[in-house]
Amino acid sequence: MDEMRLRQIGVIHTEFKQASDTPIQTAVAGEHPGEVKIFEDYLEGLKDLDGFDRIWLIYWCDRATHSKLTVKPYLDQKPHGVFATRAPSRPNPLGISAVRLHKIEGDKLVISGVDILDGTPLVDIKPYTPRFDHFEVERSGWLDEADNKRTTADDRFEKSGEE
Amino acid sequence: MDEMRLRQIGVIHTEFKQASDTPIQTAVAGEHPGEVKIFEDYLEGLKDLDGFDRIWLIYWCDRATHSKLTVKPYLDQKPHGVFATRAPSRPNPLGISAVRLHKIEGDKLVISGVDILDGTPLVDIKPYTPRFDHFEVERSGWLDEADNKRTTADDRFEKSGEE
Repeated sequence: MDEMRLRQIGVIHTEFKQASDTPIQTAVAGEHPGEVKIFEDYLEGLKDLDGFDRIWLIYWCDRATHSKLTVKPYLDQKPHGVFATRAPSRPNPLGISAVRLHKIEGDKLVISGVDILDGTPLVDIKPYTPRFDHFEVERSGWLDEADNKRTTADDRFEKSGEE
Repeated sequence: MDEMRLRQIGVIHTEFKQASDTPIQTAVAGEHPGEVKIFEDYLEGLKDLDGFDRIWLIYWCDRATHSKLTVKPYLDQKPHGVFATRAPSRPNPLGISAVRLHKIEGDKLVISGVDILDGTPLVDIKPYTPRFDHFEVERSGWLDEADNKRTTADDRFEKSGEE
């Protein structure tokens, strides 16, 4: 098989310079503003994106520590398999966030509801729509019982936070 | 920056050998069954995943055509920017699908609601939870007005379907 090598299509700008105090998930991130700058080669692909209230950003968590298979996520005191969490220190450090899209000005997407570090490389954008993205579920695993009050991250998954 | 190179963590098996007649999205895919085989090196990361009714699969659309920035999606007659669609022929051919997880047997995830080609390389799994993944939106762009009756794909984004 061909190599699976990602091309950076843009960069995400936010007020969060390090993991500590960054919101854990868009759903709890409130209205923190952000901007996405799309590289010129990919601008054509933005046509009609502005009709969507919310978009998926798919990005490379470039400051996550090396891959871990067992992690203690921010929202619980117990360790879990990394695939049962959204921790960034994964075999492939991909993040997905459904952020609010306010407007598009040339190569700039004005967004809010970000839980992403400043300078994070963007690799894909997809439209968010309830039709494709809303599913009813009865069980959300350890999240159903975890201590859910925490809303911001710390440095546990960040390169500079390692021993 | 370091290269963004993906590691395959498993393979997705479905009844769909080619794009034609494959469901377009999980939401319209009905209960088509599937299986995910996870490679041995990554099995530890599955711990506690079985508590979730639904999971995100992130995969590499290895049979998509070369990247296009303007596409005519399955659900409309008009062309749109690729980032305003979920077409697979993107600068980075990543797909995301929220599939139903029935059970985990060793290295095998038994799933349903798949819209993925058989043999597709898996690169990540994340838990699906309404808490992180449900957002109310008022506008879903061109999808609000498109001819939405189609439920299966054709070969327009498949390598073998190219001139």
